[in-house]
Amino acid sequence: MALIVQKFGGTSVGTVERIQEVAKKLIQFQQQGHDLVVVVSAMSGETNRLLSLANELNDNPQGRELDVLLSTGEQVTIALLCMALEQQGVHANSYTGSQVRILTDKTHNKARIMEIDDQKIRNDLAKGHIVVVAGFQGCDEFGNITTLGRGGSDTTAVALAAALNASECQIYTDVDGVYTTDPRVVAEARRLDKITFEEMLEMASLGAKVLQIRSVEFASKYNVPLRVLSSFKEGGGTLITSEETEMEQAQISGIAFNRDEAKLTILGVPDNPGIASQILGPIAKQNIEVDMIIQNTGHDGTTDFTFTVHRNDYASAMSIIKAAAKTLSAREVNGDDKIAKISIVGVGMRSHAGIANTMFEALASEGINICMISTSEIKISVVIDEKYLELGVRTLHNAFELEHE
Amino acid sequence: MALIVQKFGGTSVGTVERIQEVAKKLIQFQQQGHDLVVVVSAMSGETNRLLSLANELNDNPQGRELDVLLSTGEQVTIALLCMALEQQGVHANSYTGSQVRILTDKTHNKARIMEIDDQKIRNDLAKGHIVVVAGFQGCDEFGNITTLGRGGSDTTAVALAAALNASECQIYTDVDGVYTTDPRVVAEARRLDKITFEEMLEMASLGAKVLQIRSVEFASKYNVPLRVLSSFKEGGGTLITSEETEMEQAQISGIAFNRDEAKLTILGVPDNPGIASQILGPIAKQNIEVDMIIQNTGHDGTTDFTFTVHRNDYASAMSIIKAAAKTLSAREVNGDDKIAKISIVGVGMRSHAGIANTMFEALASEGINICMISTSEIKISVVIDEKYLELGVRTLHNAFELEHE
Repeated sequence: MALIVQKFGGTSVGTVERIQEVAKKLIQFQQQGHDLVVVVSAMSGETNRLLSLANELNDNPQGRELDVLLSTGEQVTIALLCMALEQQGVHANSYTGSQVRILTDKTHNKARIMEIDDQKIRNDLAKGHIVVVAGFQGCDEFGNITTLGRGGSDTTAVALAAALNASECQIYTDVDGVYTTDPRVVAEARRLDKITFEEMLEMASLGAKVLQIRSVEFASKYNVPLRVLSSFKEGGGTLITSEETEMEQAQISGIAFNRDEAKLTILGVPDNPGIASQILGPIAKQNIEVDMIIQNTGHDGTTDFTFTVHRNDYASAMSIIKAAAKTLSAREVNGDDKIAKISIVGVGMRSHAGIANTMFEALASEGINICMISTSEIKISVVIDEKYLELGVRTLHNAFELEHE
Repeated sequence: MALIVQKFGGTSVGTVERIQEVAKKLIQFQQQGHDLVVVVSAMSGETNRLLSLANELNDNPQGRELDVLLSTGEQVTIALLCMALEQQGVHANSYTGSQVRILTDKTHNKARIMEIDDQKIRNDLAKGHIVVVAGFQGCDEFGNITTLGRGGSDTTAVALAAALNASECQIYTDVDGVYTTDPRVVAEARRLDKITFEEMLEMASLGAKVLQIRSVEFASKYNVPLRVLSSFKEGGGTLITSEETEMEQAQISGIAFNRDEAKLTILGVPDNPGIASQILGPIAKQNIEVDMIIQNTGHDGTTDFTFTVHRNDYASAMSIIKAAAKTLSAREVNGDDKIAKISIVGVGMRSHAGIANTMFEALASEGINICMISTSEIKISVVIDEKYLELGVRTLHNAFELEHE
């Protein structure tokens, strides 16, 4: 008998029928002898409905009131799920974030969980009840309602699992696990049974949006085994843990990619200390986030400096950089917003030489030119021409034999 | 400068545009120098939407979860109204019942307010903020969300006015005040400028549904001046107070009526002590509410016993009474569910003789037969054949000259 925290997202509780399905699933699980704490999101569409009401009334709604408004979405779901459980003969109690209580800081709309009181939940579990908790929300020390930001229900689930020392935190989604890459791009993409937190973080931050990245960080920090499963399909999903043991054979776990970025290059700047900050300072001031940053070793006393930003920020970044280029007497500025980034991710690459070489050779064999390279402990990213994205991903998936276990 | 509590019902905040109108009205009011605490209901239709979701999931939803669900309705409105106020440049803070906190007993769906903490509200008012409070809800000592039952937002407003010692509690509705009788029945019906709590209680309990009866009791108990006004029309509305002074001339303030009742009579029961409880005991056991009860003086050692119940309970009450009649060896049982009750209400009748006579004569002059009569300090009720209802009300309105001030 184990204590399990399960989280069901908006699509999984999007209709009365789906809520009934979730209730049925929970009862089966409880009958297997598990203690169950369930975290739910707002019914799909509800958060957007509330947001549009807010925007009709205020161009820039107060954070405090926005949280009061949006938190009702999950509050509706917890009550409905408890009713569905009771109808099927199982006792259940619901709790809002304030009721639990899930104490957060005061940052409305993006609050961070500071502390969770587990007393009410433990009391209910001891009585054999299923406990249903509203995701995405908490309250500050003064009782003001806060929300954790979009996708925050995952974070709630992980934080509860950590506070309750749960055996596992299971996130039910509309996909049945984490794949070696996007199955829409590579038909042979394979569901991973296991993946490490670090790998998952790299995958998630690179656009493989199965889990909210903060929830993975949280799970990693408190070492909560995290499992991604489908609400609609049977199957064991993907377990995300800190254990690497069983994965030592695998060099690469998956391939992530995105086409949200644009690159900007400033050529022939004087190779002096402080150049990077002179270029990136004005960018940061405009709250433009920078992803990759590459500076080549200089020659002739000058160097080339390249970085990537979100495609939406390309135009404003470019005008900032052009101004900076003048001040720095740079030779030239250019850029490209038709790029794509592909990354291979795997803890195995730490101990295996030649991974990078395999990657570069595979891309070269298909005539794909690499514009930028950047590496980390467990990841190698390349930037290529956008039009080669799908071909590149398929080529690498094949080169690393990801279709086989 | 006065502290005023204003309450806006579901229709008054039923759309984004109406919420904007309410915000505008509040700001004008504040600019006149008043401190404002505003109580709002759920947007019209929302409570029913939530209830139907609940009923789809559970034939008999748990009271606790129903309260978690329904309380979201008002929570949405408080946030939206604060956003609308802020957009128009006025600071506002919202509070749910739990946040205030409005402490109630544990009776879910029908909780009673026990205590209100006014600290947060007073702090906000001192800063010049408008305070917006969710009606209809509170929490018990353990932090469980409770609701006060339908119409409970009126009660919230009055309770807040009492706790804050407000100068007036203003209830905005879709009618512009309390009338001498229903204007749909009597075209000459006149809006009353003032009415006493007692009269209002009799009017309200008799189906003149302007205010929820509990809120009037509450206002009377704590002597909170209560004003009914229209959200959509200018005007001073009707003030409900404990003062009788200005009303001494008037004998009758209004005429209330309903056609929701049915009567049952048990004839020729032995005139022994305990008869009434033997008849009504089984009725009460089935949770059937009894309104009028009349027992005539007996003769031949037997008596006749008549009472009225809600029309929906007629069939079940009849079968209970038939069983009781056998046990009591009663002569006969009969009943009628095509009746109507008309009541004349007025504190003036205490000191004026002849009111009853005027009433009975007026009805007789139109050939309306009276089946039952019951009286209280400030009310005389008659039960007549349903088909004479409108005629009876018009006749009495005319007989007591209610169209003139």
